[in-house]
Amino acid sequence: MEEAAFHGETVITFLWIAVILLAAKIASLVEKIGQPSVLGELVMGVLLGNLTLLGIHVFEPMKHDSIIAFLAELGVVILLFQIGLESNIAKMRKVGIRAFLVATIGVIAPFVLGTYIVGPWLLPGLNQNTYLFLGAALTATSVGITARVFQDLGKLHISSAQIVLGAAVIDDVMGLIILAVVSALVTVGAVSLGVISTIVAEAILFLVGAIVIGHFAAPFLGKVLSKINTGVGMKFALAISFGLVFAYLAKAQFGLASIVGAFAAGLVLDPVHFRFFREPKVLEDFREATKDANGELRERIKNVIEHHSHRHVEDLTDPLAHFFVPIFFVMTGMSVQLATLFNPQVLLVALAITGVAVVGKIAAGIAAGKGDRLLVGLGMIPRGEVGLIFATMGASLGVVPPDVFSIIVIMVILTTLLTPPILAFLLKRKGGGEISTPSSIAALAHA
Amino acid sequence: MEEAAFHGETVITFLWIAVILLAAKIASLVEKIGQPSVLGELVMGVLLGNLTLLGIHVFEPMKHDSIIAFLAELGVVILLFQIGLESNIAKMRKVGIRAFLVATIGVIAPFVLGTYIVGPWLLPGLNQNTYLFLGAALTATSVGITARVFQDLGKLHISSAQIVLGAAVIDDVMGLIILAVVSALVTVGAVSLGVISTIVAEAILFLVGAIVIGHFAAPFLGKVLSKINTGVGMKFALAISFGLVFAYLAKAQFGLASIVGAFAAGLVLDPVHFRFFREPKVLEDFREATKDANGELRERIKNVIEHHSHRHVEDLTDPLAHFFVPIFFVMTGMSVQLATLFNPQVLLVALAITGVAVVGKIAAGIAAGKGDRLLVGLGMIPRGEVGLIFATMGASLGVVPPDVFSIIVIMVILTTLLTPPILAFLLKRKGGGEISTPSSIAALAHA
Repeated sequence: MEEAAFHGETVITFLWIAVILLAAKIASLVEKIGQPSVLGELVMGVLLGNLTLLGIHVFEPMKHDSIIAFLAELGVVILLFQIGLESNIAKMRKVGIRAFLVATIGVIAPFVLGTYIVGPWLLPGLNQNTYLFLGAALTATSVGITARVFQDLGKLHISSAQIVLGAAVIDDVMGLIILAVVSALVTVGAVSLGVISTIVAEAILFLVGAIVIGHFAAPFLGKVLSKINTGVGMKFALAISFGLVFAYLAKAQFGLASIVGAFAAGLVLDPVHFRFFREPKVLEDFREATKDANGELRERIKNVIEHHSHRHVEDLTDPLAHFFVPIFFVMTGMSVQLATLFNPQVLLVALAITGVAVVGKIAAGIAAGKGDRLLVGLGMIPRGEVGLIFATMGASLGVVPPDVFSIIVIMVILTTLLTPPILAFLLKRKGGGEISTPSSIAALAHA
Repeated sequence: MEEAAFHGETVITFLWIAVILLAAKIASLVEKIGQPSVLGELVMGVLLGNLTLLGIHVFEPMKHDSIIAFLAELGVVILLFQIGLESNIAKMRKVGIRAFLVATIGVIAPFVLGTYIVGPWLLPGLNQNTYLFLGAALTATSVGITARVFQDLGKLHISSAQIVLGAAVIDDVMGLIILAVVSALVTVGAVSLGVISTIVAEAILFLVGAIVIGHFAAPFLGKVLSKINTGVGMKFALAISFGLVFAYLAKAQFGLASIVGAFAAGLVLDPVHFRFFREPKVLEDFREATKDANGELRERIKNVIEHHSHRHVEDLTDPLAHFFVPIFFVMTGMSVQLATLFNPQVLLVALAITGVAVVGKIAAGIAAGKGDRLLVGLGMIPRGEVGLIFATMGASLGVVPPDVFSIIVIMVILTTLLTPPILAFLLKRKGGGEISTPSSIAALAHA
């Protein structure tokens, strides 16, 4: 009865999903050489997306497949929801001030450098509004890539990771304000304080609201769930739905990014309330097989059963993440147009602008405090899709000419692709840190 | 960098997915009263889809959301792939002749009854082509619903289930031929033998090809996989991709339904080759805790470890099915328009036509042989989307007037909604049967 099932147009998407899943899995073999698998997925995407340079056009329709685009967004939403679940709201609050400082400096430094110093210096004679958009494009951090690197290496719980996550949320709110301001300056020529206060108020309302709702709703939900004892299916559905509703609210109602909503949802859901107490078959079998053991052995067996009978909602969302998350990163890689790197003059300016992008965030990292400075600074570098939003908007307003657009695209490419290996290198050199959660792959293997 | 991520239009789909998941989970509480959860999902869909009758229009956009439609189709593809994995090709072959007979009678009986007897009798004075489409709409079985009922009750392995699955695949091929014939009769006025032979040849080529490829490729894949030892992620990606590629090929290249391709893929993938040998953490812990046990206890512990260290690819696809499959059934329910039941005259004729639909398939069940007759006959009853394809096509060709269209829709509604409870009642009365696999919910809980 499914209408779209009758049409043949969407069936090709099955093939694209298969291509992405296989490509991502092959790419994740970079783990064998110690690299985070997100790097493999990005590079694989870049390769697939640029086969046109070799005259192979077969994968081009993927770039314009709206269902694949949706699945990619769902992927990054699920990723940030998971990362929110694995993050601790108390710990987050503890790094709150530092995250705020990192976000603020990380927005102001590249904006001022780009708009007033390096922009006019390297690209003289352009409209002031062009510099404005160039600077704005340098501000916003794309948190998905950094979060994946921390997750791949099992380092989500170290303080640097928490600061980056917090700063990225605040960063998104600031990005929203900047976008509103520069758009108003270009179109109306002036900024309305009313509009800006509304944006700020809405964003704060959403974030504070999410935390308050979470504070009261999660324990209530947990109580209800443990009473009706409906099994894991219900918990899984409730958790995922919670994340999706928050993603929707953030984007549709408050103008924030969907991933900010998903992260907030994960953050406020205390995983403890989603523990499931149903005993897996394997434990039952062990209990049965060893029921006549006694003494110390009995005690040890009891401990193992105890330890493994609590499982968390992350275990349920992991296989889903396995399916959806690589779609986002492969598609992010595919949107990289290597051809833009071929113009030497543009490339040179782009390298300088990338330098500004890096320096601005490294400077912001200083606010993170001792021990976290470099990791946080590096973690804030990827600009991802947010930089491109500014470029696209500027182009559509007629103030970002094609070469400046290319420069922004190259800056995004470089910050996106260079961050994972450098971050991975530093994280591994740093070693232990706090106790880490297993990466999602390990968790799935052990599920 | 994901373009669609910039647009707000698709974000509402997050909300629809959350609505469907929650509605489906609430609906699956019908399990508590012994009903298969698919029935709950269908009824919940009917409720959501007909709230307009009470003046609530908020869920209407879901029906026209092309991404939801795609996710629904992906859901039924994953379901049939899973069911293929759980089916055994040797057992399938054993019931092959019976399945063929069931399919053949199940196509001919309702077609002849509908086109030449009951159609002209109850709806006199219509164009002969109208009767032709009415009869054709009565032929094709929609296997998703029956398969879910068998799966929900853990009865996929009984011979009746295997006969229904086999017959449904053959049925789809026959449906294809009938669709080509009636379309040709209506548009050209004659049937080209060449066109029909091409359709038949292609369908047979696909099914035979799938089995041959599976016969050789699956052991090869298994060998490669066990050599490179890439862990479960790769096996998961390979298995799912295999199913998706077959679904694509069936629909895009051979004109079959995507679910036939997915089922064939699951059938030819011998799950043995996708066993994963990595020892879960819980087993390691037990081995460690009980390493000084001896005698009979040691032996028993060894057996439990042995038993649980082989896990199959179904365990990996289950959480995915949990997410996607309910979307299909809730959306199927939503496409039911209760308003069509309000015209008493149409309703009466529709009830009679539904009787023909039921009788035709019950008659076909006789070919299934002793012990399976009634279950197979009932299992073939749901017409689902396939009946609607005929109705829609006939309407677009101008030979199916609105009231006949409504009659077909009501027939589809009734056969779809009445089969699950009756089948569940019979299956539970029949009891044991062969050893059954756990339903997907139980499997997830034990994963």
